[in-house]
Amino acid sequence: MAMTGRHFVKFTFLKLDPSWRRRDPADRARDKAEFAAACNDFGEDHFLRAYSLVGTRGDTDLMIRCSAPALDPIHELHVLLNQSGLMRYAEVSQSYLALTKESVYSDEPQPLQPREGSDRKYLIVYPMWKKREWYQLPPEERMRIMRGHIEVGRRYGSIEINTAYSFGLDDQEFVVSFNADDPAEFLDLVQELRGTESSAYTESETPIFTCISASVERALDALDGETVPAVQA
Amino acid sequence: MAMTGRHFVKFTFLKLDPSWRRRDPADRARDKAEFAAACNDFGEDHFLRAYSLVGTRGDTDLMIRCSAPALDPIHELHVLLNQSGLMRYAEVSQSYLALTKESVYSDEPQPLQPREGSDRKYLIVYPMWKKREWYQLPPEERMRIMRGHIEVGRRYGSIEINTAYSFGLDDQEFVVSFNADDPAEFLDLVQELRGTESSAYTESETPIFTCISASVERALDALDGETVPAVQA
Amino acid sequence: MAMTGRHFVKFTFLKLDPSWRRRDPADRARDKAEFAAACNDFGEDHFLRAYSLVGTRGDTDLMIRCSAPALDPIHELHVLLNQSGLMRYAEVSQSYLALTKESVYSDEPQPLQPREGSDRKYLIVYPMWKKREWYQLPPEERMRIMRGHIEVGRRYGSIEINTAYSFGLDDQEFVVSFNADDPAEFLDLVQELRGTESSAYTESETPIFTCISASVERALDALDGETVPAVQA
Amino acid sequence: MAMTGRHFVKFTFLKLDPSWRRRDPADRARDKAEFAAACNDFGEDHFLRAYSLVGTRGDTDLMIRCSAPALDPIHELHVLLNQSGLMRYAEVSQSYLALTKESVYSDEPQPLQPREGSDRKYLIVYPMWKKREWYQLPPEERMRIMRGHIEVGRRYGSIEINTAYSFGLDDQEFVVSFNADDPAEFLDLVQELRGTESSAYTESETPIFTCISASVERALDALDGETVPAVQA
Amino acid sequence: MAMTGRHFVKFTFLKLDPSWRRRDPADRARDKAEFAAACNDFGEDHFLRAYSLVGTRGDTDLMIRCSAPALDPIHELHVLLNQSGLMRYAEVSQSYLALTKESVYSDEPQPLQPREGSDRKYLIVYPMWKKREWYQLPPEERMRIMRGHIEVGRRYGSIEINTAYSFGLDDQEFVVSFNADDPAEFLDLVQELRGTESSAYTESETPIFTCISASVERALDALDGETVPAVQA
Repeated sequence: MAMTGRHFVKFTFLKLDPSWRRRDPADRARDKAEFAAACNDFGEDHFLRAYSLVGTRGDTDLMIRCSAPALDPIHELHVLLNQSGLMRYAEVSQSYLALTKESVYSDEPQPLQPREGSDRKYLIVYPMWKKREWYQLPPEERMRIMRGHIEVGRRYGSIEINTAYSFGLDDQEFVVSFNADDPAEFLDLVQELRGTESSAYTESETPIFTCISASVERALDALDGETVPAVQA
Repeated sequence: MAMTGRHFVKFTFLKLDPSWRRRDPADRARDKAEFAAACNDFGEDHFLRAYSLVGTRGDTDLMIRCSAPALDPIHELHVLLNQSGLMRYAEVSQSYLALTKESVYSDEPQPLQPREGSDRKYLIVYPMWKKREWYQLPPEERMRIMRGHIEVGRRYGSIEINTAYSFGLDDQEFVVSFNADDPAEFLDLVQELRGTESSAYTESETPIFTCISASVERALDALDGETVPAVQA
Repeated sequence: MAMTGRHFVKFTFLKLDPSWRRRDPADRARDKAEFAAACNDFGEDHFLRAYSLVGTRGDTDLMIRCSAPALDPIHELHVLLNQSGLMRYAEVSQSYLALTKESVYSDEPQPLQPREGSDRKYLIVYPMWKKREWYQLPPEERMRIMRGHIEVGRRYGSIEINTAYSFGLDDQEFVVSFNADDPAEFLDLVQELRGTESSAYTESETPIFTCISASVERALDALDGETVPAVQA
Repeated sequence: MAMTGRHFVKFTFLKLDPSWRRRDPADRARDKAEFAAACNDFGEDHFLRAYSLVGTRGDTDLMIRCSAPALDPIHELHVLLNQSGLMRYAEVSQSYLALTKESVYSDEPQPLQPREGSDRKYLIVYPMWKKREWYQLPPEERMRIMRGHIEVGRRYGSIEINTAYSFGLDDQEFVVSFNADDPAEFLDLVQELRGTESSAYTESETPIFTCISASVERALDALDGETVPAVQA
Repeated sequence: MAMTGRHFVKFTFLKLDPSWRRRDPADRARDKAEFAAACNDFGEDHFLRAYSLVGTRGDTDLMIRCSAPALDPIHELHVLLNQSGLMRYAEVSQSYLALTKESVYSDEPQPLQPREGSDRKYLIVYPMWKKREWYQLPPEERMRIMRGHIEVGRRYGSIEINTAYSFGLDDQEFVVSFNADDPAEFLDLVQELRGTESSAYTESETPIFTCISASVERALDALDGETVPAVQA
């Protein structure tokens, strides 16, 4: 079984302890700069994007999405993040580990590389589990049901979907993420999908995170409303 | 698909760390004034209301409900709130993000603007999920069932309902809120609705928050029983 | 719909932070005296009872049960409690808001006033939800089933029941509480009720709190084993 | 209904805050000695046993199991424990309150007194709930099913069972505990019981605590690996 | 029933408090060295392996897997760990206690000794519960279903499975762990197993932990990105 081309994808959500905001502005600036340096180092050779969740969620403030062909660089990135001042006041509030894999249902491209759509304004992410009944269906039946699902999606052409697989690696079965510029359009798509046959086979698809695309520095700035100093990576 | 007129609605619930009450009264006054200033700034151009939950809930103390035609101003409001002294001692205990949308069932006005009823004494808020079976029903069947539901509601004429939609943007499907002056009347309405056909299609409608309408300053005063100084926004 | 005579009932459970016990005995005495003063002030015009849960539960230490014809005095009581030193080291671990309402099933008196039984040694409290199937039954069927339930209860004559209603105001549908002198008798009643028809329509009736009746001062003393100084209300 | 001979049983599980281990060894020794003194005082007139969970669980470190014919002494024991230095750094992580009661199914002796088996090396404890369907079965059917259950148990003769009842007093219906010297034998018994008819009527029987019998002093020593000084009770 | 050769297996997952990273590098080095010394002492006579979860999970940082023929040495190891500086800033975030047992379905060797495969790069661990319906099936039916399951596993020959049993000793029924070098291959195996008959009898198999094999020292280094000094055990 050739593994060529499959990539690990990691979504790391952080929640700052309120006490971090009691630190001196200079200390906070250094805390953020160290965190940004680790991200930017990794980003030189690998895919890494940052997102702010300030104002969209209450249980998390910042998300780092990164990808690599092996687990080692992702492990090392997180070791480096642990060295930053910021992680002395932050918890990993949610964490999703997944792998890319060719879909049996569609010609969906694999999100190995930051694809065209990745600069959309929002990334919407959620872990997903299907009911066990789904897996008992014959393949052609599952194919038929998924086609109905995909057809609805095609009518919302500006929404891009990335599916990653977590079976056996993490709690969820899939990590699904969407690039979108207009959250209202995405809402309408999801509401319409509720009526499809495939929807009845969903066991769980929460929590749902509306993530605001940002540079690492801007996502860090949103934590305390102050500008992170220039970082030399 | 025209998005004209749809507004984002955000319900941000805060829980103060008990240690905040150990701070000097002057510090607490400044913490609250900074928080109020951010709210009042936002409120100049957008809809923002404050509510106290002191005495009605145990897991949250204060709720800020705000609305804007895009996510950016809501994100920025929360960045500014993070700069206030109060957020150095507070957690966002619950958070609900939603969008307004024209209902297919009724002529319910969209809560884009603070409507007449918004100065009622209480706002009752809860996230809601319907069972997946609901979405498998044919549209005319859903229409018939919703009409029964709406008819009961009409007999409690002083209660106003605002429905916002969260499909794909946040964990819940809907955020439902009610303006009411008499909680006892609302209780009787909800109890009567349990007997309607639509009630059997509810998956979850908790937690339920009874929120006491207040100015931002009064909602902040209830946190420590002391008066917030005048704020120049 | 006449609201005359309906009262709000609030059950506020507190959990002390273990660090509170590290404070000086004099500080703790003042913390408790301030809390007791707020309770006693409220108790002059309204119903208020205190209970200790030290030794019966692990997630809560103290419960305040209060009642008033409107929400305002209950809100104000909790604002005053927030001013006390004790609330700088305490969390509201559970909170149940409810309203009294005439029962359609029995001639049970409304617990508006502290009734004869309220000086029993224990108050057992729990939130309750019924299955949605219950509400789909015809009224006469529900009446028949409830009569079977009430009949069993009558054979345990020393147990008094108080039912309060929370539909739409708080997470639960009912807050049920029982005055009892002998917990063993209450246990036998609850075990026997498991065999009744109505029991099959219960969705949830936990957590269950066995609360020990006490003066406000004695309930506070149980927190650190030291006597609270005399309070002049 | 004669209550003669029924005893309250309380299982109090404690979790130490890691910060407690940062205290001076002398302070920790005093903290433990105060806790042990309260236990030993109670133990002079009542049943009290201590257990360590260090190495068997992660969410709790120590369990105190005590019994008395009334709730008052149990309440007072926990008030005294609250006075000890140890409870300034400990949380009650789990708590189970129950009463002894004559079983309708067997001639199982009531665990009022520390019975012969109570010096076995391990006590395994869990709260239990049966499905509501169980209580709808006719008594003779329940008797038949329980006999199959008891028969399997009899083949594991060295395991002793103690059943206590919590209906209406605490969240669970039963607190079941087992004295055993060989955990492997107990595991085999539980696995074999999965195949009995009665097993299908179990709603929940977790969490399961494997508790290591110890003197109060040894259970306290396991918290920080240091010897508690001799205690004069 | 011969117990000869059965071993206790303990999986202890640790989560560091972010405040630990605020300590001096020298203090952190000593904290880690003390923890490593306790592990290495135990490892002289017993099986002990360490794993890092930095970058694969958010709720835990480090896992210690140890095994012994009796509970006493495992209890004592954890008492010693409690003495280390590291445990003054760490919580046991997850804990699984289990016993080895001969499988009735296969000739799977018992993981008593570190077997050949134990130096694979990853260990994937999860607790498992089967549905009660499973245990009601006749033995030959269960055997038939398990054979289908085992057959799929055999096609992924580089994956090794270790099953341990927790019935009655801990919350879960089984602790399943897999030695693997290629997480992608394991993912494909788990996804394929979803379609087997046995999969429908799984009640729960989360959380799932992807653990990175490491020496005790390297797993500790990943906590703060700094090298632990040489340890003399």
